[in-house]
Amino acid sequence: SGVNAIESIAKEVSDCLAKVSRDEVEHAVTLLDGATRVFVAGAGRSALGVRGFGMRLMHLGLTTYVVGETTTPGIGSGDVLVIGSGSGRTASLLSSAKKARALGASLLLVTIDPSSPIGQLADFVIRVPAPSPKASGGGESSSVQPMGSLFEQSLFILLDALIVMLMEKREINAADMFGRHANLE
Amino acid sequence: SGVNAIESIAKEVSDCLAKVSRDEVEHAVTLLDGATRVFVAGAGRSALGVRGFGMRLMHLGLTTYVVGETTTPGIGSGDVLVIGSGSGRTASLLSSAKKARALGASLLLVTIDPSSPIGQLADFVIRVPAPSPKASGGGESSSVQPMGSLFEQSLFILLDALIVMLMEKREINAADMFGRHANLE
Amino acid sequence: SGVNAIESIAKEVSDCLAKVSRDEVEHAVTLLDGATRVFVAGAGRSALGVRGFGMRLMHLGLTTYVVGETTTPGIGSGDVLVIGSGSGRTASLLSSAKKARALGASLLLVTIDPSSPIGQLADFVIRVPAPSPKASGGGESSSVQPMGSLFEQSLFILLDALIVMLMEKREINAADMFGRHANLE
Amino acid sequence: SGVNAIESIAKEVSDCLAKVSRDEVEHAVTLLDGATRVFVAGAGRSALGVRGFGMRLMHLGLTTYVVGETTTPGIGSGDVLVIGSGSGRTASLLSSAKKARALGASLLLVTIDPSSPIGQLADFVIRVPAPSPKASGGGESSSVQPMGSLFEQSLFILLDALIVMLMEKREINAADMFGRHANLE
Repeated sequence: SGVNAIESIAKEVSDCLAKVSRDEVEHAVTLLDGATRVFVAGAGRSALGVRGFGMRLMHLGLTTYVVGETTTPGIGSGDVLVIGSGSGRTASLLSSAKKARALGASLLLVTIDPSSPIGQLADFVIRVPAPSPKASGGGESSSVQPMGSLFEQSLFILLDALIVMLMEKREINAADMFGRHANLE
Repeated sequence: SGVNAIESIAKEVSDCLAKVSRDEVEHAVTLLDGATRVFVAGAGRSALGVRGFGMRLMHLGLTTYVVGETTTPGIGSGDVLVIGSGSGRTASLLSSAKKARALGASLLLVTIDPSSPIGQLADFVIRVPAPSPKASGGGESSSVQPMGSLFEQSLFILLDALIVMLMEKREINAADMFGRHANLE
Repeated sequence: SGVNAIESIAKEVSDCLAKVSRDEVEHAVTLLDGATRVFVAGAGRSALGVRGFGMRLMHLGLTTYVVGETTTPGIGSGDVLVIGSGSGRTASLLSSAKKARALGASLLLVTIDPSSPIGQLADFVIRVPAPSPKASGGGESSSVQPMGSLFEQSLFILLDALIVMLMEKREINAADMFGRHANLE
Repeated sequence: SGVNAIESIAKEVSDCLAKVSRDEVEHAVTLLDGATRVFVAGAGRSALGVRGFGMRLMHLGLTTYVVGETTTPGIGSGDVLVIGSGSGRTASLLSSAKKARALGASLLLVTIDPSSPIGQLADFVIRVPAPSPKASGGGESSSVQPMGSLFEQSLFILLDALIVMLMEKREINAADMFGRHANLE
């Protein structure tokens, strides 16, 4: 019944994240650690985890921008674009991916489908084995949840894990990060 | 080391959510199910889970608005304001909470601290026992993560669990919800 | 010199708006007055006027959504999509325009170029004779300003003029509108 | 009748802007030209002009942030906060103004009311003599428009005039600015 939804979802997320490749995650951390600037992009509910990640990267001291926000500048060589997209084929994100590659930036994709159009453009991919929003059962994992919810939750937590790994790599603690917090709100 | 960050965080979230009161969750579902309109509000990274929740409530067929977005109208009697706030004391949210109560709306708060100023105004509270962003150890739970990350992750998943419970209560399935999806992006 | 920039720009805007077809404006007002729901969309700085228009339509009592905001639902037959686009060819807006038409909605475009791809899809067009952002002199009008600024300013004011015309048509006054103002911020 | 709304509003804006003090404008340009970083803030429809201004400042090559966007960092000494507020007393903006001053930043306010609470905190004020949204007639200027529309339009154009003045002062042309345009959308 309904009251078990919390446990069900927490278990789905844990099981899904347990299958993520640690090699893919380590490569992503190395990429981000060496970036001149990081641009992050997502659509719909996947934009939520991506934005939360952008804010924490700023707290870490990286120069970070969210694609589509008011004062986000042009991307260029040495920069990294991070896209979160379950399907790996959202039109606006595919367009950004193509432009980023043409402009000399590196592309990291977090997705359900590494063979997707954006996946084929990416330098680095982290696969999240959540069920496709359109899949009717089957697949490696299943979910009690509608549409892409399991991917979106896993994305949110996975990106926060990258933050903890970058904190260790750069020897930055939470107090350092708090000092970079927005202070006008 | 870093590669265990994913497991650590997934376990933190599961443990934190396991302590959430099922009674508090059931009362929130009943409140939302009877709402004329639902308004959702959060600040910083807590705004992320709150926005994801707002989008899914719209998919469920509820009339839903995010406080601060362009065409959000005035709140009134019969409406419900849902606030996600770890501290329960963010100034802008406290201001919205006071106004909502004065205008006859009900207030549901998801928070670490039910005794906070917003908690004292709320009709319904769901307590999420994550560590306070400012706590240095101690408390019921602890985290390897900076600032309010564990609260923000737990909030995101908890609100998605409310969606699954509302789907059951209203006998709405994922296909119904997909039909209400934004179709211009 | 610099201090004359204000006069120069105010004159540019007045001159540009004086050339807008009153017939096109009247048709747009009639269309909006009969809409079931109004969806508004723009990109970059053209999104600013469009959002300001969306907010005022809500104040007028029309059911209004900004494309891309969190709880914007699907569009359908009887609805109107209003796009502000200087070039009339922004990829994401062209995609929305095609979808809106396929789903049975009407399309109103405010643009510099009625013969653009979005212009060709539109049921109604209001032409704003500002210089193209990419034009090097020439054209009907010129500007001391960079890129699309004159279009964006003219769009902002033109859409606010539609609001005044809708107020007259519906006999709604400012006090009525103030009563529909967001009240939680 | 309605079709004259465009002319009426264009004239209102021109008349209102003609009364803005050129000294106040020149001081603002000097302040912005010397800023380490510029932060911009506004609420409701005044946020529109402010955001458009932030985008153009970025195009000019200034390091610019919109208060409340995802990756906006903390403000500090040497930075400038620009607030657009008709009333000069919006609670969230007053709070930001106080914090900015306490943190050593300079404050520029564009407002109808220089004697307002934010006006009293500001280092520099540009007065825009539009009618107060709550005024019932009287005052220096009047408007056929609802609420703060005349202020919001005047703000939008005035801030764009500051851009033209900064272009002249820094000898930056439109082509330079286009090169800093966001390139992923």
